[in-house]
Amino acid sequence: MRTVKVPLGDRSYVIQVGNQLLATLGHDCQKLKLGGRCAVITDANVVKHHGAPALKALKAADFDPILITVAAGETSKRMAVVEQCYDQLAAHRLERKSFIVALGGGVVGDLAGFVAATYLRGIPFVQVPTTLLAQVDSSVGGKTGVNLRAGKNLVGAFYQPRLVLCDLDTLKTLPDREYISGLAEVVKYGIIYDASLFRRLERNTRPLVERDSRVLAEVVARCCQIKADVVGQDETESGLRAILNFGHTIGHAIENSSGYGTYLHGEAISLGQAAAARLSRELSGLPADEVGRIENLFGQFGLPLKIRLSASARKKIFTAMTLDKKVSDGEIKFVLAHQIGQVAWGKNVPPAAINRVLDEIQPAAKRPGS
Amino acid sequence: MRTVKVPLGDRSYVIQVGNQLLATLGHDCQKLKLGGRCAVITDANVVKHHGAPALKALKAADFDPILITVAAGETSKRMAVVEQCYDQLAAHRLERKSFIVALGGGVVGDLAGFVAATYLRGIPFVQVPTTLLAQVDSSVGGKTGVNLRAGKNLVGAFYQPRLVLCDLDTLKTLPDREYISGLAEVVKYGIIYDASLFRRLERNTRPLVERDSRVLAEVVARCCQIKADVVGQDETESGLRAILNFGHTIGHAIENSSGYGTYLHGEAISLGQAAAARLSRELSGLPADEVGRIENLFGQFGLPLKIRLSASARKKIFTAMTLDKKVSDGEIKFVLAHQIGQVAWGKNVPPAAINRVLDEIQPAAKRPGS
Repeated sequence: MRTVKVPLGDRSYVIQVGNQLLATLGHDCQKLKLGGRCAVITDANVVKHHGAPALKALKAADFDPILITVAAGETSKRMAVVEQCYDQLAAHRLERKSFIVALGGGVVGDLAGFVAATYLRGIPFVQVPTTLLAQVDSSVGGKTGVNLRAGKNLVGAFYQPRLVLCDLDTLKTLPDREYISGLAEVVKYGIIYDASLFRRLERNTRPLVERDSRVLAEVVARCCQIKADVVGQDETESGLRAILNFGHTIGHAIENSSGYGTYLHGEAISLGQAAAARLSRELSGLPADEVGRIENLFGQFGLPLKIRLSASARKKIFTAMTLDKKVSDGEIKFVLAHQIGQVAWGKNVPPAAINRVLDEIQPAAKRPGS
Repeated sequence: MRTVKVPLGDRSYVIQVGNQLLATLGHDCQKLKLGGRCAVITDANVVKHHGAPALKALKAADFDPILITVAAGETSKRMAVVEQCYDQLAAHRLERKSFIVALGGGVVGDLAGFVAATYLRGIPFVQVPTTLLAQVDSSVGGKTGVNLRAGKNLVGAFYQPRLVLCDLDTLKTLPDREYISGLAEVVKYGIIYDASLFRRLERNTRPLVERDSRVLAEVVARCCQIKADVVGQDETESGLRAILNFGHTIGHAIENSSGYGTYLHGEAISLGQAAAARLSRELSGLPADEVGRIENLFGQFGLPLKIRLSASARKKIFTAMTLDKKVSDGEIKFVLAHQIGQVAWGKNVPPAAINRVLDEIQPAAKRPGS
């Protein structure tokens, strides 16, 4: 088992990465002196594979867990579901010393984390991310949130978990599309922070696609370490933390304007990173061959690089970008790369450059006039 | 104008207490370098008296305020209204640098504070409390929250305002019942922390009932100072801050189990403090003559000391108390007084003692058999 520390003063915690960690969940919660009652918040898919083992581990450690199962998918990240969770916690009389276990992917983690941050003005919670995306990204760093009709993650709180357990065995039950989608965030860490991680990914595309636990353990732990480093320096996104949004400005806009669910988050930010790499070539000196390596790596993983956009879809993307939290004083700010492993944030990008890049990532076969 | 500092490290802020402060709202927000856009959240009663002056002051300082008006009363402290506020903020494209002004009583402050704490994971907010209760209590200390069907304030966040403006002129527009209700919290500060404040209240019952600005300025500033002292030592209620809940365990249970709105908050905690004073006499040595002085002072202000409780109402009160956030491991904990000006928290009180006290605060004229 690998352990990554997230250094945040009195809100510090550890991330454990390894196999068969679900079995130690109860024991780990005991060691943290968490309270007697707890609620496991999970979704209808995850509960089938991991619900019983999680409850068993908690009961074996003399906890008294209740199970709250929400519908699988992004549509559960909304206020009505938050309120249903509150009502169940209150109905079961969970108190301030109680805690919440978020068992699932990013949706469950964001939702359960927000519930934990706000029920009784905050009770402890533990993240047990069961998707690759959640293990390397959303479970680390304390961002919690839900969506509004107007956009993704427009509501939330910065709220740190007390423990994160990344059980690599849970990744074996993921559908291919969802697993592969998570690799888009893994690639991101290479681009924004660690050229040697990027090279390791290039050397290991096949074992990664095949979910090889040995390679995954190293890679997941390294991604968590990078995120922990960044978050440790900037907990509430006033500066450096913004680099984690590489590819997310356009990615979120695509995800949002396509209707939740058309693209998985990783697929949308694969497109967003392809676009950001091209903007970086134009505006911040990213060499053309590195743009090629980035696109090649996404391609090797089977992640999308091209998207067909109607005029109205493009308009929607711009509208979504201007509502994004990364907008400041009305200007659209991007994270751009100088080279693989090195980025800068807060770069103002003119709409014309964004339009050019959106032209470039149209699939060639169906370009107008071709 | 009096100024009270709330010392919370990088979340420190000041409370201004005085007359005609609404006129300086925009200027004060400018001095704090708050962002260009803002939303004033208020209610349908308050907006009539203070909406136009608040907007004028903000516009005069080149802010671009939007106005969100919710229904007056406790029923606005619920998730559906929170979500309506989010939707309006998003529709008007409020960004991370935008801020919220909470203009109104405790309901507006708790609601708008929670919205500010969670919209875009937190944007700055300014409290302009327009009721006595809000000026001396809810606007200070960073507790925000809304109610669930299961109980009051079961959802919320600890989130500090950037500034609190207590404009004493706004108190002149309050209905008598609402103004008087606020005096219950004022008395509480005397009981929990400051015997000399308590004596000052005893000497000034008439000017206080008549809303004399000179007396009010001293008293409001002193209450804010006490709350700031307490909150400064214990921001998230892990210890000392609990003393602010004197009278609130039974008070909240009465307020909740009677249906929101039957008793104003101050009326319910007047009853709760009368009950807590009697429990203190029985369990923590509060002299009988001090119980008498406490009840006399509430009586002088016209606050209720007696409540008729059916068997089912009493059962509801116990149910509500066991769901209260101040319950820990199933035990009901109270703040009890040793003498006026000195209390201790975390006292376990047996249900039998609570029942005896609930008998005592029944109105004598209609006791069974009489």
